[in-house]
Amino acid sequence: MTLHGKSIIAGQPASAGGNVFHAINPATAAELEPDFHEGLPADVNAALNAAVAAFNDFRTCPPEQRARLLESIAAEIEALGDALLQRTMLETGLPLVRLQGERARTCGQLRLFAGVVREGSWIDARIDPALPDRQPIPRPDLRRMLIPIGPVVVFGASNFPYAFSVAGGDTASALAAGCPVVVKAHGAHPGTSELIAGAVSRAVATCGLPAGIFSLVHGGPAVGMALVKHPLTAAVGFTGSHAGGRALFDAAASRTHPIPVFAEMSSVNPVVLLPGAVRERGPALAQGLLTSFTLGVGQFCTKPGLVFVLRDSETDTLVSTLVGLVEKAAGGTMLSPGIRTAFGENCRRITGARGVSVLAPASTPGGADTPLGQPAVAMVSAADFMDQPVLATEAFGPFTLIVLADAPDQITACVHALEGQLTATVHGTSADLDGARALLSLLEQKVGRVVINGFPTGVDVGAAMNHGGPYPATTDVRFTSVGTAALLRFARPVCYQGYPQDLLPDALRDRNVHGLMRRIDGQLTRDDVA
Amino acid sequence: MTLHGKSIIAGQPASAGGNVFHAINPATAAELEPDFHEGLPADVNAALNAAVAAFNDFRTCPPEQRARLLESIAAEIEALGDALLQRTMLETGLPLVRLQGERARTCGQLRLFAGVVREGSWIDARIDPALPDRQPIPRPDLRRMLIPIGPVVVFGASNFPYAFSVAGGDTASALAAGCPVVVKAHGAHPGTSELIAGAVSRAVATCGLPAGIFSLVHGGPAVGMALVKHPLTAAVGFTGSHAGGRALFDAAASRTHPIPVFAEMSSVNPVVLLPGAVRERGPALAQGLLTSFTLGVGQFCTKPGLVFVLRDSETDTLVSTLVGLVEKAAGGTMLSPGIRTAFGENCRRITGARGVSVLAPASTPGGADTPLGQPAVAMVSAADFMDQPVLATEAFGPFTLIVLADAPDQITACVHALEGQLTATVHGTSADLDGARALLSLLEQKVGRVVINGFPTGVDVGAAMNHGGPYPATTDVRFTSVGTAALLRFARPVCYQGYPQDLLPDALRDRNVHGLMRRIDGQLTRDDVA
Repeated sequence: MTLHGKSIIAGQPASAGGNVFHAINPATAAELEPDFHEGLPADVNAALNAAVAAFNDFRTCPPEQRARLLESIAAEIEALGDALLQRTMLETGLPLVRLQGERARTCGQLRLFAGVVREGSWIDARIDPALPDRQPIPRPDLRRMLIPIGPVVVFGASNFPYAFSVAGGDTASALAAGCPVVVKAHGAHPGTSELIAGAVSRAVATCGLPAGIFSLVHGGPAVGMALVKHPLTAAVGFTGSHAGGRALFDAAASRTHPIPVFAEMSSVNPVVLLPGAVRERGPALAQGLLTSFTLGVGQFCTKPGLVFVLRDSETDTLVSTLVGLVEKAAGGTMLSPGIRTAFGENCRRITGARGVSVLAPASTPGGADTPLGQPAVAMVSAADFMDQPVLATEAFGPFTLIVLADAPDQITACVHALEGQLTATVHGTSADLDGARALLSLLEQKVGRVVINGFPTGVDVGAAMNHGGPYPATTDVRFTSVGTAALLRFARPVCYQGYPQDLLPDALRDRNVHGLMRRIDGQLTRDDVA
Repeated sequence: MTLHGKSIIAGQPASAGGNVFHAINPATAAELEPDFHEGLPADVNAALNAAVAAFNDFRTCPPEQRARLLESIAAEIEALGDALLQRTMLETGLPLVRLQGERARTCGQLRLFAGVVREGSWIDARIDPALPDRQPIPRPDLRRMLIPIGPVVVFGASNFPYAFSVAGGDTASALAAGCPVVVKAHGAHPGTSELIAGAVSRAVATCGLPAGIFSLVHGGPAVGMALVKHPLTAAVGFTGSHAGGRALFDAAASRTHPIPVFAEMSSVNPVVLLPGAVRERGPALAQGLLTSFTLGVGQFCTKPGLVFVLRDSETDTLVSTLVGLVEKAAGGTMLSPGIRTAFGENCRRITGARGVSVLAPASTPGGADTPLGQPAVAMVSAADFMDQPVLATEAFGPFTLIVLADAPDQITACVHALEGQLTATVHGTSADLDGARALLSLLEQKVGRVVINGFPTGVDVGAAMNHGGPYPATTDVRFTSVGTAALLRFARPVCYQGYPQDLLPDALRDRNVHGLMRRIDGQLTRDDVA
């Protein structure tokens, strides 16, 4: 499979005028072929202009056509076969089985959104029919639904080269909502990005949709910023670092016409181990923690990075078990040399704080000159934790910090001091949990998802998922970036007053041709308007 | 009814330490009794701390209790009787009949939200039951619903002293969602604000809810800014000027932890008169326009401020009719001396632009030294309109600008150049409208509500209303500030994974005790979980 190394604007390769860069094999630090070319300002402008030109046709196309587009993208990705997997392995260091699973998840996600588009009720149709005789004043005919917000800029993430990248959750949900998409390719997997962008472009053509609904632009932060600041951009989806997400949010908020940014950023995903659970199943908890915080070499947004537990002899046993497991755990190639370096630095920042002791491995993690992220666990007292906010920051990679508390109230105080998180997890027996209602209530206010007796990694893609949370977990606590509700980020309501039937969108006509769940006079029903 | 002139923090009058100010009778420019006292930083802090302290009890109280609170507030407002109306007339210059109508709307709105809370399906409950045998990995039990976002700061608006002020749409929707509210009273009607705040506080007490769920703070921009920047504030509702709304938005976006601001700001609400309609019912259109742009002395967010029409002899007749009506129209007392002054300035700014001719009244509007806002109409060519962006800005008051176009394409070009609006209106015959589909599609992308053969003033409060629109109409196009969907502004999703039944909120348990519409495995149903 030959790569041309260029941005793809509305289905066509762009010029090769921009700075040249290469993908790096993180396992060897070797440059990969071919040359890639950063997008130029003209490419950014062309992509957004093509998106706007295509928007009206796309937003008004039948839902069935939009559903087929999503399914065609999935089929085209699958048709890339092993060549895609091989390229992504080279670019990311992720193992084949993981990438096969992630590809399945990505295609499943596209097909799930196709189902949502076909069913159609997500538009939240509301009809208040005219009441010409109402006193003191008549009511006009009022009909409201969600329509797509406009061109969406999506930033590919390094840690999910399929599921949160070119045709990942942000792209799938924006296309499902009816929005054109311009992807800023992540520089760590440009070949993967080009291959997937080709698949998307072919699907767009196959479905008879305008090519402008999808473009891919290569480049670094300057290109990203140009995309966010472009006057035709209507919304932004981003998954990555706090610094990166905040910079985009600030740029978007300071535009003449501000636009929403859905940045999913940093999270330490606290876990609380209650005493009954520690007593009943300490070794299983240790094993579960290890699996969760080292999954994908710890490079998940939902990696549990903090473990709160009461200081007692059963906890000592659990910790010993965990330390034994960590010492035996193999390191894994991290996604990029930069992530590997940052992991080492962040580990040292945390383990260098007062009162923190590294339990495993024997040498301070991150010291060695290797592409591997070596699993590591450290420990600190709750009192020292409370005093040092650095200990509640994220070290992206296979590291977790155990916080030993002297009393349940101390755990509550630590949780109270935490910033917003994607997830929180509590392990407990029935009796533990019954006594922890106040803690659960507090956690619910701090996070987007609370997990009981499970682990936060492994984010299921369905209707009920919420992958979001109060700042700094995300920049917009009101929305999820995973699951079917993610398309609500890219929609906005419009009300049609006094419209004749034939000028209304299908979904709002008296006859409910698509069988949507609608609110008529405030009541949910699939009936026609009487 | 005696007024104490102080802020009300969690049901109690605050200290009288802040700067003293007075309400002004806009008809006479006379100061009204008593002294009012601006809130101090300590009052702001006390209000937010009380809100947070009360939040957990309030958010978890039964929906029935929240519904009764909203109904009790309505009853308490009604119980204020004529004393309230008299005070508001003095403070706002608005006539009795208008205030009676607005009070009815405000109480109706509170009761409407009570119904929404009781019905309960707005929380968008989603349940994906566990699939322990799913391949390749099991699905955990996942349940998601909307929960309240936290304390909401509401800015009272001057132009709707009941419906968009202390117990107006923002407060009603925030309380309905389960959020404590801190109101920044508008300085133009502090006595009205105190009376309504007393009514709310009594209702809170009657319903056995914690007093901290409602506070009222008097003060100017500094107090408002302190409320928006307070770390415990979770969201902001505002209706007012673009400068004011943007300043609050910028402050909120630049917080360490940014929060959403729903600012409903400026809109010129374009009207397009298509030729068939002008021919068929020119005089009726002239009368309808006059009524709409002078309603409430033109002090409505939805006042039609621009009228696009083709240049021809029937248009000449319509314009002459309108001019005759405007010349005979009586002026009305404007809400405050400041608004009166700004109206004059804005009219002069627009009518002073190149090519603009004032059609009525004979003297340039706004010149005289009077509290009255005198209806005025001016005219300009589409070519001159396109060249001068000032002509598309809002003059808050009874002024409208007719834009004469030489061809339909010129109207489209003018509309294309407009910024975001709350509303757009099109008058046309069936044939006109059939030929204007592209124009309607364009308008739909520019505004929050498109009106056909009606007028934009008179915003119905129901399920299907959308009062919002692209920037600068509002700072968040994804939400409405009027109608039942307004409470979605103040809610956010949370997902409960692996919860035992007895720890789940009622709404997410297997047994659907409240009969909510929920999504189970993505399918909408009122069934229990099987």
